[in-house]
Amino acid sequence: MQKILIANRGEIALRVMRSAREMGIKTVAVYSSADRDALHVRYADEAIYIGEPPASQSYLVGEKIIEACRITGAEGIHPGYGFLSENAAFARMVRQAGLILIGPSPEAMEIMGNKLSAKAAALKYNIPMVPGTEEAITDVAEAKLRAIEVGFPILIKAAAGGGGKGMRIVTGEDEFEEQMQLAVSEATSAFGDGSVFIERYVSSPRHIEIQVLGDSHGNILHLFERDCSVQRRHQKVIEEAPSAVLTPEIRERMGKCAVDVARSVNYTGAGTVEFILDEKLDFYFLEMNTRLQVEHPVTEAITGIDLVKEQIKIARGEAISFSQEDLSIRGHAMELRVYAEDPANNFLPDIGTLQTYITPKGPGVRVDDGFEQGMEIPIYYDPMIAKLITYGKDRTEAIERMKRAIDEYHITGITTTLGFGRFVMEHEAFSSGHFDTHFVKKYFDPNTAADTNEQEAIVASVIFEKLLSSAKQTDARHELMSETVNWVKNRKVF
Amino acid sequence: MQKILIANRGEIALRVMRSAREMGIKTVAVYSSADRDALHVRYADEAIYIGEPPASQSYLVGEKIIEACRITGAEGIHPGYGFLSENAAFARMVRQAGLILIGPSPEAMEIMGNKLSAKAAALKYNIPMVPGTEEAITDVAEAKLRAIEVGFPILIKAAAGGGGKGMRIVTGEDEFEEQMQLAVSEATSAFGDGSVFIERYVSSPRHIEIQVLGDSHGNILHLFERDCSVQRRHQKVIEEAPSAVLTPEIRERMGKCAVDVARSVNYTGAGTVEFILDEKLDFYFLEMNTRLQVEHPVTEAITGIDLVKEQIKIARGEAISFSQEDLSIRGHAMELRVYAEDPANNFLPDIGTLQTYITPKGPGVRVDDGFEQGMEIPIYYDPMIAKLITYGKDRTEAIERMKRAIDEYHITGITTTLGFGRFVMEHEAFSSGHFDTHFVKKYFDPNTAADTNEQEAIVASVIFEKLLSSAKQTDARHELMSETVNWVKNRKVF
Repeated sequence: MQKILIANRGEIALRVMRSAREMGIKTVAVYSSADRDALHVRYADEAIYIGEPPASQSYLVGEKIIEACRITGAEGIHPGYGFLSENAAFARMVRQAGLILIGPSPEAMEIMGNKLSAKAAALKYNIPMVPGTEEAITDVAEAKLRAIEVGFPILIKAAAGGGGKGMRIVTGEDEFEEQMQLAVSEATSAFGDGSVFIERYVSSPRHIEIQVLGDSHGNILHLFERDCSVQRRHQKVIEEAPSAVLTPEIRERMGKCAVDVARSVNYTGAGTVEFILDEKLDFYFLEMNTRLQVEHPVTEAITGIDLVKEQIKIARGEAISFSQEDLSIRGHAMELRVYAEDPANNFLPDIGTLQTYITPKGPGVRVDDGFEQGMEIPIYYDPMIAKLITYGKDRTEAIERMKRAIDEYHITGITTTLGFGRFVMEHEAFSSGHFDTHFVKKYFDPNTAADTNEQEAIVASVIFEKLLSSAKQTDARHELMSETVNWVKNRKVF
Repeated sequence: MQKILIANRGEIALRVMRSAREMGIKTVAVYSSADRDALHVRYADEAIYIGEPPASQSYLVGEKIIEACRITGAEGIHPGYGFLSENAAFARMVRQAGLILIGPSPEAMEIMGNKLSAKAAALKYNIPMVPGTEEAITDVAEAKLRAIEVGFPILIKAAAGGGGKGMRIVTGEDEFEEQMQLAVSEATSAFGDGSVFIERYVSSPRHIEIQVLGDSHGNILHLFERDCSVQRRHQKVIEEAPSAVLTPEIRERMGKCAVDVARSVNYTGAGTVEFILDEKLDFYFLEMNTRLQVEHPVTEAITGIDLVKEQIKIARGEAISFSQEDLSIRGHAMELRVYAEDPANNFLPDIGTLQTYITPKGPGVRVDDGFEQGMEIPIYYDPMIAKLITYGKDRTEAIERMKRAIDEYHITGITTTLGFGRFVMEHEAFSSGHFDTHFVKKYFDPNTAADTNEQEAIVASVIFEKLLSSAKQTDARHELMSETVNWVKNRKVF
């Protein structure tokens, strides 16, 4: 492949282009009219306009992507994450057009894209699943027997359900009948179907995922875990590698399971096998994501492997050039997703212009972003501004570095998750490693989280600038300036 | 130490403050009137004005630094590199003031600051020196005998010399008398002293240095080598770690020698032992630098150790928390010093304003700098704008990443060494690892190195901006824009 098209936008488009450029591969960007000024358009060797927002008119239209390849002569397509990245129909379309998708086969996407077929594939390798009924039940007596087998606490879930309707947590045998009847009647009235599943309720779950790589020569290996337990609105916001709680022995077992899940679909490319980990460090398969993850940089930091380059090499038909034994964990990495969101307002997306946008630098800091000062965050797409990744020799250093990097990150004009990130880094539950996916619900009080520093920062920076310029006129003011600058600094706004 | 003062400016002041902040230590900046707007002033918790440029009126005045500590209550002083960092008299002054210098003892500085006493200290540990006479000679017959002992080619150097005067390379015994007589008469007329030293001439030398750390408990260890052979005007411009030519066995021997040199002066803190390496991979002690080096980040990248934090911990009296066996090399790191210099004009310093200043990002890239867009590079100080450090799993990836990062680095308004860096990265002698300190002299043709892209870049960016803004007004122009953007891109100015 001499030239590839990146069928995405924002930070991930830039991130892919950087690796391609290092490999001497030409890049083609695609863009909607909302992304005309975007950095990924400027970074690419060529750029093709593919329509208006929303994405359904542009980034999600497979035909336009393939047409852009035809125009530019791009031989391969990197889909990034989101958009068309896990779309088996698109993967087939790419194959039929004689192009190479930098990702797994449509068959692997299809099997892993459906919870039931994914589970069936994984079962062939005896991958642990959350214990429970495999088929929907309506009979209370039978359900109770199954619940006793599974062991309390259990979760009753409406088979046709969603959004928590018809869902009941049952802590003991004695209350089972009552709760089951409530669940069934709730499910019946909500979905017209009273059948339910019963499964073990994991009260303190951690979200642990394993990065895998597979090539077309049958090699599959894993690159250890990421812990993505800090979530808001059921979505990840802080990720780290390695996990603070995994033992080497459990890491090895999870890694082996992840490789088996990938093997069950002859997986090629980079993928992620997600598990739930309970308090006893028992783990259960959740699902497989058949793409590059947002949080892949933490794995790159601790392994030294460039995952995008590996994806491209695998798509070119090369065998992975290292073995499982060559891989090891060095140091610790943290990622904070810097979203244009208001943590004080249930993390609702904020819109606006990046009036100030200064990114942190120095040892152990990586910023993957797609914006620069003066740009607007388009309302049409995911509100992620950047990923802030820190790396240190151990977890403590990665956390201290993250706090320092958050302090250096200056964004005005938009409310972000930076302050929330600092809250998490400073929280004892996080720094001690004793947390689960309920972290935000348990500990975060939106009322104390307002980004109150922003106004203060603007005022102080105006004073500061004024002082500096007046001081230039007469050196006699130096001492005064020195004092006042210290005063401003002590207000901790710089 | 709750608060430290950084007796320096620019990137190294910021770099030290970053580590201090991660350790929860407050920082005090000092600044001259030329550095009023400097980033290190803004970054510190407090800032003290210490006078006018040049440095002899401010950064070099020990009394002003100590007074600034008294005013702010700073307990320790980090001197960075240059300025007061290797000044034994200042180190004594700090000690007498009851403050802590984050660096070695004045005694160690004094011994290593003088070539003769440094050599004498190192000789106690049988450190290899460039073979030659230890005392000055005038007698031709005696000199010839010593030359034969040393082995040709040899170098005749005027004892009182400097600047190449009275210096002769002698390749064989038969021409010795003639060259010696020429050297003696040249030295006599230039310095009024005809005595000379004779030493082995290393025709293809590499500059290899070993990073060491010593604590106040007698622990001394090394953090492997840096290869700094690419130099211009006898000063380093590109450094890397590890060296492309060292074998594990030579690395271990050099490391042991470096530890011994440090032990000879009971060294505490971070220091660097410099060696010359010849074609046969024999190495000889040159000198010891009793401070943090400019190029320390490449060592941080391959070892995962934050050297500034180690310096601070050692100054606090802590024992180094790891052993020699805990240390290992992972991956490969490159550093390019981005100077405000004109490579086409013998690397003479350039002055001006950073009209455009955009730094590279993404995996494996670290930028340590002290400027932002719109700032002037002051004429009073070292013309270094930034250090661009890349890290990859191997030397090839570090080089490819450096090329990519150089492409992303946009500086207009000032001529820099970025283009020169690209020249080196692309040169076969560099990429193959077969180069020595004569690299620039041998391969670099200043006439082909003019930074011709700059004007082109400005023109193209103006066209680009115009196109983008006009395209905003009517979507019908999208296709035209797409085409023209590609045309601009193909001119490789972005």
